[in-house]
Parts: sequence; structure tokens; C-alpha cells
Amino acid sequence: MQNRSISQVATMATSSSTEKLPRVLIVKRPDAMAVLGDGFVASTKFEILKAFESPLPLPEFLAYHSDSISAIIAPVAAPVTADLIRILPNLRLVVTTSAGVDHVDLVECRRRGISVANAGSSFSEDVADTAVGLLIDVFRRISAANRFVKQRFWPLKGDYPLGSKLGRKRIGIVGLGSIGSKVATRLDAFGCQISYSSRNRKPYDVPYHYYMDIEEMAANSDALIICCELNEKTLRLINKDVLSALGKRGVIVNVARGAIIDEEEMVRCLREGEIGGAGLDVFEDEPNVPKELFELDNVVFSPHSAFMTLEGLEELGKVVVGNIEAFFSNKPLLTPVL
Amino acid sequence: MQNRSISQVATMATSSSTEKLPRVLIVKRPDAMAVLGDGFVASTKFEILKAFESPLPLPEFLAYHSDSISAIIAPVAAPVTADLIRILPNLRLVVTTSAGVDHVDLVECRRRGISVANAGSSFSEDVADTAVGLLIDVFRRISAANRFVKQRFWPLKGDYPLGSKLGRKRIGIVGLGSIGSKVATRLDAFGCQISYSSRNRKPYDVPYHYYMDIEEMAANSDALIICCELNEKTLRLINKDVLSALGKRGVIVNVARGAIIDEEEMVRCLREGEIGGAGLDVFEDEPNVPKELFELDNVVFSPHSAFMTLEGLEELGKVVVGNIEAFFSNKPLLTPVL
Repeated sequence: MQNRSISQVATMATSSSTEKLPRVLIVKRPDAMAVLGDGFVASTKFEILKAFESPLPLPEFLAYHSDSISAIIAPVAAPVTADLIRILPNLRLVVTTSAGVDHVDLVECRRRGISVANAGSSFSEDVADTAVGLLIDVFRRISAANRFVKQRFWPLKGDYPLGSKLGRKRIGIVGLGSIGSKVATRLDAFGCQISYSSRNRKPYDVPYHYYMDIEEMAANSDALIICCELNEKTLRLINKDVLSALGKRGVIVNVARGAIIDEEEMVRCLREGEIGGAGLDVFEDEPNVPKELFELDNVVFSPHSAFMTLEGLEELGKVVVGNIEAFFSNKPLLTPVL
Repeated sequence: MQNRSISQVATMATSSSTEKLPRVLIVKRPDAMAVLGDGFVASTKFEILKAFESPLPLPEFLAYHSDSISAIIAPVAAPVTADLIRILPNLRLVVTTSAGVDHVDLVECRRRGISVANAGSSFSEDVADTAVGLLIDVFRRISAANRFVKQRFWPLKGDYPLGSKLGRKRIGIVGLGSIGSKVATRLDAFGCQISYSSRNRKPYDVPYHYYMDIEEMAANSDALIICCELNEKTLRLINKDVLSALGKRGVIVNVARGAIIDEEEMVRCLREGEIGGAGLDVFEDEPNVPKELFELDNVVFSPHSAFMTLEGLEELGKVVVGNIEAFFSNKPLLTPVL
């Protein structure tokens, strides 16, 4: 370090020395990049600036590069706040690696005229598959049965992981958008009875029962599957009253955002047996997971990986790169939000 | 023991002292009874004789009771062999607690004019659900992700349990009967491409591709799901050649019978990475499980519990009791095999 100038150190994190290409900031390494490597968003048309690989502290790194940054690739773990936006005078584009954009200050982006693109609906199928996988796991105790065998409890020793039948279960889907409707199609094939709640009732060719009131849906459901976006109206939508209406045998699956559930209250309900189980891919303060639940056989976790498949990540990389290349070629964004 | 006669000891295992009711032998406790208790097959119309609760060794127990036994409730773990049948001169009915009857010597039953009933198709939905649950678990690494979080590997440490997309996977179903066709309906909803092999091609309204040759199906499938019955033709049907055709990324799911797969060869293929993963509910020598596979993240076990749900076991109890009561009232069996 001592023999290098700030300039030398700061430029260590750029992926190329070409000066003319648009520079795209990544503050924290997206999981997809940790898995796929830099090829995840490789392009000859822009240059990646990886703050997370720089030996400089983030504020110094940003201070040095701020003028040159014209776009950000934003995983959920690295929020694009008004503060960050303010120190990047030439920022013109934010592309998220998620469908949700709740970690981007859209108000500030709009004020500044910054364009925003998300991951589109490329993840919907994979997320819906995970939601169903978590639901089957909790009801049919797939993970628990696997542990039971590996702990050499078969023939019967200890508590047998007896499951509950999927057929005829009443499933309440919170948010019947791109993901929710795919969850519905899948669970329909298992003979489940599907209901949904959403901002508005869907057109009449949607064959599922609509609840305007989520507490009423919870009271009439064996499981709730959270598939909606996080916004002011859905923040802590699944509160104490909804969990209490879901009841002792009710299961909750969340593949949307942690903060849609009152996590503290859910943890209490699970620990005290006031709800029946949970399949959780997302958490309020990721990657912090409520460790008080680790001992519970009826709670199944995944590390915000509902969207993570090899095929899905490759597709995501194409969408991110496609959006950035389109923007700097003055073409329309592939999956515009703003 | 010293103060009791053989007669006293032997009758300890009967559930009632009424002499006139038909006596129904159970050699080994069915898992369903371990879970639900004696209420599983309670009836006022017959008497249960539980060999597994008697302090007498089985041969002595049978020798003492042989003349009085007119029916057997037969879980898979307690085969009804020609030897057993021979020492029960008044045996007239065998009722299995499974859909499969491969553990019953049907030839000897036919020769002796003994009626046989099975569990019918009451399990099909639950078994199909488990097959799909195991397949999602292996492809999307649900159990592995759960362990990953609980081992505090998130944020990323160790091998990330990256899954593979379910959509467009080519699924080969071995045996498109009651269970196989339900697996097909479910996976169809995930966007999988379904093929099947079976003794005969199904009528033309079955929309799935038919393979006469199972090796050819394996070569053109990302996963095989075994749903057929075990008989002379399906014994070790999934041999070295089929596994080799399935290939390095191919997954095998078995919810049928262990002996349909060459287990030793499958274990070798899994250990050496010659196939991609497995979801196994059944094994050649249950409850012995190939423990060499316990370390593998891509193998998920369940303890022959694909059919085990609270609702399914209650239904099973009704079918078993219904068959026995019908038989001794000279009515037709509910789910006759012979």
C-alpha cells in the first residue's frame, strides 16, 4: 500500500483500463457473481467497477471514482440510497439483480432523472418452484425425514416425521402477480384449493377465490404463501392478527421480502406453537436469520436463493447486461421500472 | 414368566378376550400403528393378534395360535411367505398395508384359495406428492440450502447449494399407473417435459411421449422417477446400463420398491459422480439404508414414508378394517387383489 498512490489503489478494482467505456459500479458482490464469477455480467461495452474488491474503504473508493460512475448494478444486499445517489453526480442508470426494487430509492431516482431497470420476470418460475418446494417440505417433512434417516432413527426411534396431506389444503396466496400466479398453477395440480389476496381483484377468468381482507384469508387457509412486492402497504402486512388467524396448524411460506412479515412476532408464534410451520427464503435483516428457529423441525430455511438456479442466473446476467448495453446505446431498457 | 403358562403368555398379545371373533395376525408393527396407535385398525368385528408384542419367540407364538388365525395384516416389512402360510391352516385372507403386494406369496395364496386385498390407490396422491417433493429437493437443493443456513454458511462460505431449474427438464416416469400419472400431472404444471415407459403404450389421449426401451428413455431424460410395481420384469430394471444412460447430471427418484434399482450399482454411480443425484424413499433391504451415501448433499432420503400422512394413514386404516369386516361378513373386498 505504501508504495502506491490512491489512484493506483483505486483503479485496481476496475476490470479494464479502457477509459471511454461507461463505468458501472457494484458495491457488494451479487450472489450470482460469487457463484458464476465475473462472467456473470461481462461485456465489451461497459466497464465494471467492483468496490468490494478494492482495499480502500467504500467512502474513499466512491470519492475517488464518483465522477466516472454512470450506472450501478444493485443486488438487494447493497441498497441504492439517496445518500449514495447524491455522491454520484453522473449516475444515470440503476439495474437491480432482483425483481423487487424496494432497496432502491425510487423517489430520489425520479427526482434526478435516473433510469431504473430490474431483473424482469426471469426469476418467476424458479421462485414459484421454490415456494412449492418449501411448502411440500414443511407439510410432507422432506428435510425432517432426510435427517431422521441420516440420524439412524429408522426403524422408528424418536419423533417420526409424519407429514400432512397436500391435497385439499386451502392455500392463500398473497399477491397474485407473476410469481403468485405460477405458484397457483403448480399447487392446483396437487389438488390444493387456491385463494388469493391482492390490491385488486383479478379479471373473472382467474378461477381462484379472492379475499379483500388478508386476515379473513388467513383464517380460511392452511397455508399462506407470500409472493407480493414490498412497499408501504405490504410492510409488516403479516402481523400478529394475521398469524393468529392462520392458527396452530397453519404454515407460512415467504419467497418475497422478509419485512412483509412481522418477523419478531412470527418467531414467537413458531417457538410457542401458535402457527404450524414455516418455509422461509427471505428475512428482515439478511443475511441475519432468526437462529432461535434452528432447532425447530417444522421450519425450513433457504438463503434468499429462491431465484438461484444455474439457468436462472445465466438468464439474469443476460438481462442485466442487456439493460446496460441498451441504455448506453440509447435503446429502450429491456425491463424498465423508471 | 416362570409363573405363567405358555397359554397365559401367548394370549397376552390379543387385544380382547372375546373368543368368537375372527383373529387377525400382525407379525410386525406397521409404521402406521407405531404412529397412530392401536386405533389404526380398531374394530368390534375382529380381534387383533400382535405377535410383535408377545414375549414369546415368533415360532412358538405362531405354533400356539396357528389354528385360530384366519387373516393377516401384512406390512411390507413382514413378508407373507409360503412358509408362514403353511403353518396357518385356517388362513383365509391377507390384507397388505401397502399398494404393492410383492411381499405376499401370491402363488401360494392362489393355491390355497386365500383372498388378498391391498391398500388400493388411497396412497397414490401422497406418494406422487413425495416423488415431486424429492425431485424438487434434489434439483433445487432445498434440504441442502436448509443445512447451509443452519450451519451459518450465509453470507457465502463453503459450497453454495446452487440448484438447477425445474422448467423444461425432461422427466422419464417408469410406470404410468395410479401414482405415475399423478406425478406427470404435477410436473406438467412446472413446465417439465414428461415421458414414460410402461408395459404397454397408453391410449392416445395420454399426452406424454412413450418409450418402449427404458435405456433410451434414460438417455433422453434429466430425471427418472420410479413408480412401477415390483415384479419379475421390473426387478433390477434400473441396472448399470440404464444408470449409465441417465448420465452425470441425471437424477433418480424412487418411491416404488428398492429392488427395482440395482442398489449396489446406484450407490457406486452416486459415489463416483456417474449420476447427478437421487431422492430415495425405498431401499433393497429396509430399514437398512446405504450409509455410504449419507455424506452426499445430492442424495435425499425418506424412510419409506412417501405414503405417510396423517390423513393417508387414517384412510389406510379404514381400507384395512373395511376389507376385513367385508370379508367376514361375506361381502366383496373393497380393494381385492386375489
